[in-house]
Amino acid sequence: MQKKAVILVSGGLDSSTVLAMLDKKGYEIHALSFNYSQNNVVELKKIKEFLKGYNVVQHKIINFDLSLFSTSALTSKQTKVPKYKNSKEVGNAVPVTYVPARNTIFLSVALGYAETIGASDIFLGTHASDSANYPDCRPEYIKSFESMANLATKQGVEGNKININAPLIDMSKSEIVKKGLKLGVDYSKTISCYDPTDEADSCGECLACRIRQDAFAANNVPDPTTYK
Amino acid sequence: MQKKAVILVSGGLDSSTVLAMLDKKGYEIHALSFNYSQNNVVELKKIKEFLKGYNVVQHKIINFDLSLFSTSALTSKQTKVPKYKNSKEVGNAVPVTYVPARNTIFLSVALGYAETIGASDIFLGTHASDSANYPDCRPEYIKSFESMANLATKQGVEGNKININAPLIDMSKSEIVKKGLKLGVDYSKTISCYDPTDEADSCGECLACRIRQDAFAANNVPDPTTYK
Repeated sequence: MQKKAVILVSGGLDSSTVLAMLDKKGYEIHALSFNYSQNNVVELKKIKEFLKGYNVVQHKIINFDLSLFSTSALTSKQTKVPKYKNSKEVGNAVPVTYVPARNTIFLSVALGYAETIGASDIFLGTHASDSANYPDCRPEYIKSFESMANLATKQGVEGNKININAPLIDMSKSEIVKKGLKLGVDYSKTISCYDPTDEADSCGECLACRIRQDAFAANNVPDPTTYK
Repeated sequence: MQKKAVILVSGGLDSSTVLAMLDKKGYEIHALSFNYSQNNVVELKKIKEFLKGYNVVQHKIINFDLSLFSTSALTSKQTKVPKYKNSKEVGNAVPVTYVPARNTIFLSVALGYAETIGASDIFLGTHASDSANYPDCRPEYIKSFESMANLATKQGVEGNKININAPLIDMSKSEIVKKGLKLGVDYSKTISCYDPTDEADSCGECLACRIRQDAFAANNVPDPTTYK
């Protein structure tokens, strides 16, 4: 029987690259996205477009109101997304775009979904360029979530291990772009911006835009993003 | 400053007893419940009523569609809640009322909420009578979730530990009732049934009803539940 995988897709550059990698591996792919009252909800439109190019048997969007976590610039109407001259400016602090427990909530839902459909593997796009700033993008976190997941579920305790796969975990953003370009990823159909327009034009000045720009520059390829 | 706690309340006997215990400890209490498309959604009405008797500064109900996890009798319209002659009949199997990753999803949201409001403690009502049947009610699971939580969050990695408290973890249902009666818990305002009527009358024959009946019988007190 074909092995099943659940992949968290955000419409961004990272999870899109993971999908392209996964597409070659012969899994039956189930994609999961979240409408979590994010200000940049336009990313969900980009996903739909991007997924058309891949063998995804099912794509589910989970509605879930994270505006409860009102302190993040990604979900608050008050806190503004900070703008930077370049990606170095932010340093190693956890920025206001951090959403408390976001990856844990997303992975938990993916876990429940994986168990429901009998999938052994969950994929997500966390990577080294984010791990300096976001605790829930670090290798030790992913490993810890996996241990917990196998104690939390019927599937896990019965010995059918659930694997949390973060294939980009040691890669920088520019290495991810390099990998994706080799796999033919159409990055014009992805969006990184924390603060895009309603037409999905990127702001060009938030941390996500700055890191994206650096990544294309490091690969000496034009950034296909539409900036406002 | 008064310490803050987040408590998961379901309207059931266990979390209601935890709330009564917590009420004596001097925390600023924030309660969290979930409307997760459960068939027994009437439990949310019971919570509102129950909470009136306690010092809870805020009660939030999170809407979240877990019918995605269609295999559970608690969320499916197809799978029927099994009925038993007594609580022993179910044995140690994981029953169809298991909802994949439910406690993990609930705790993840509680974690995000705790970090948002700066709470150091999360309380939930898992206990020994459930741990035979549900992996996500066992002590090793709770401990593993706590480790993960402290790697997942800014609060945790900065050394402000988040504690996952399951004060009933080693108690049987009858010990919980004993404890609650001492604390003056009004169990008529709680509901355990997996398959209640729209008027919140309990079925009397599901696993949850059978365990509840046994617990009151073991304490030689009348079960104040309204059965249909």
